[in-house]
Amino acid sequence: MTTVGENERVDNLFDTNLKVIQSNDVFAFSLDAVLLSRFVYVPIQKGKLIDLCTGNGAIPIMLTTRTKGTLTGIELQQRIYDMALRSASLNGLDDRISFICDDVKNAPERLGKHQFDIVTCNPPYFPAHQARDRNVNEHIAIARHEIHITLEEVISIAGELLKQKGKAAFVHRPERLIEIISSMKKNKVEPKRIQFVHPKKGKAANMVLIEGTKDGKEGITVLPPIHVYDENGNYTEDIRNGG
Amino acid sequence: MTTVGENERVDNLFDTNLKVIQSNDVFAFSLDAVLLSRFVYVPIQKGKLIDLCTGNGAIPIMLTTRTKGTLTGIELQQRIYDMALRSASLNGLDDRISFICDDVKNAPERLGKHQFDIVTCNPPYFPAHQARDRNVNEHIAIARHEIHITLEEVISIAGELLKQKGKAAFVHRPERLIEIISSMKKNKVEPKRIQFVHPKKGKAANMVLIEGTKDGKEGITVLPPIHVYDENGNYTEDIRNGG
Repeated sequence: MTTVGENERVDNLFDTNLKVIQSNDVFAFSLDAVLLSRFVYVPIQKGKLIDLCTGNGAIPIMLTTRTKGTLTGIELQQRIYDMALRSASLNGLDDRISFICDDVKNAPERLGKHQFDIVTCNPPYFPAHQARDRNVNEHIAIARHEIHITLEEVISIAGELLKQKGKAAFVHRPERLIEIISSMKKNKVEPKRIQFVHPKKGKAANMVLIEGTKDGKEGITVLPPIHVYDENGNYTEDIRNGG
Repeated sequence: MTTVGENERVDNLFDTNLKVIQSNDVFAFSLDAVLLSRFVYVPIQKGKLIDLCTGNGAIPIMLTTRTKGTLTGIELQQRIYDMALRSASLNGLDDRISFICDDVKNAPERLGKHQFDIVTCNPPYFPAHQARDRNVNEHIAIARHEIHITLEEVISIAGELLKQKGKAAFVHRPERLIEIISSMKKNKVEPKRIQFVHPKKGKAANMVLIEGTKDGKEGITVLPPIHVYDENGNYTEDIRNGG
C-alpha cells in the first residue's frame, strides 16, 4: 500500500487515469509536462528513454502509455524523488520506471554516454538570480530556477546521453528559444520539430516544445500551434484531444 | 505616363490601392512580401529604411503607407529594377523611394555602414543547387535561388547596414529557421520577434517572419500565428484585416 504523506495529495494526471502524488510544499506537475509527454517522439516497442529533472515523475508515468521501452527518471531532490517512487507505485508501474535520486550532471557517467534513444526534460525555467522565492521554499526554488543546473548544462547532458540519431525534447519559455536553439546546435542536437503553445487565440506564445536529433541534418518543421483556452476560458480541442 | 511593357501587367498590391508592375516572365510579388511589410516595425515619422533584393519594389511601395521615412530598394536585375522604378512612378511615389540597381553585396560600401534604421528582405529561398528551373528562366531562378546571394550573406549585409538598435526583418521558409537564427546571432542581429504563417488550421508553418535588433539583448516574443485560409479556402481575418 502506497503511503501518501502529510500535505500531499493524489491527483489525476490531467485527463488520464494515471495518478501522481503532489504537494504544494514542493512541486506540482503542470500542463507543460503533459504537453511534453504528448509531443516527444517515442519508439513504441522498445528503446531506452530518460527524463531529466523528473520531479514527481509525471512525464515517465505518462510515457508508459506510449511506449514499451525502458523508462528512467532522475531527480536531485530526495523528497520529490520519493514522491516519484510512490507515484509510480500507485499506478502499479514500479517495474516500468526506474527512478534515480542524483544530480543530472552525474547521469552520463552513472548511466553511460550515448546509451539513450530519447531524452526528455522540463527544466527549471528561470535564471537563478531571479529566484526571489528561494528563501521562501527551497524545493520550489530549485525546481523553478537554474540553481543547481542551467539550460545550457541540461542540453549538454542530453547530448551526452543520446545515441546517434536519438532525440531530445524540451519544454521551455519561448523568451529563451534562441538560447535553447544555440545550445542544441552547440551540442549537436539538431532542432527538427518545434511547436508553440499560446494561451488563447491572438496571444503570444507562452510555452515552446522543441525536439532535436543527435547529429541530425538541418531542417526544422514548425507544427501547428496549440491554443490552450477558447474564448469562453475552456480547454480547446487541441488540449482535450490529447494533441 | 508610365509605360507598361509587353508581357507585363499592372496588379493591385493585395488589398491596397497601390499598384505594381508584374510579369510572369520575371517576377511576381507574393503574400510573403505583403506579410513582411505588415510585420516589420517601422518608425512612423522619419528614419532610413532599405529593402534588399527588392524585386519590383512591392515592399517599399507598401511601406510608404506606414512611414514618412526615406525608403531605398536595391535590386540586382536590370529588368526587374526597371519594373520597380515604373511601379513607384505609377503610384506617384517617385520621390518617396530610391531604387538602386546593384548587387546587394555592394550596399554597405555604396550606402555607408551602420546608417539604416530598418532593413527588410524577402531573399531567395532555395539553395542554388536546387535551381532546376535555372535553364528555363534565369530571372526567376535568380529571384528564387541563392545563385547571386546566400541567406548568410543577406543577413551579414543587413548587420553591416544597420545602426545600433536598428532592426532587420526577414521572411523565409521555416525549414531554414535554425540557419536564420544562427546567422542573425553571428552577425549580432538578436532575434526579438517571430511569427509563423500556417496555410490553414492544423497545418505546419510554411512561412516565418523574423525581426532582430542590432546589438539587442536576448529574449524573443513569439507572436500569435497567422493562418492564411479558413476551412472554406477563403482568406482568414488574419490576412484580410491587415494583421
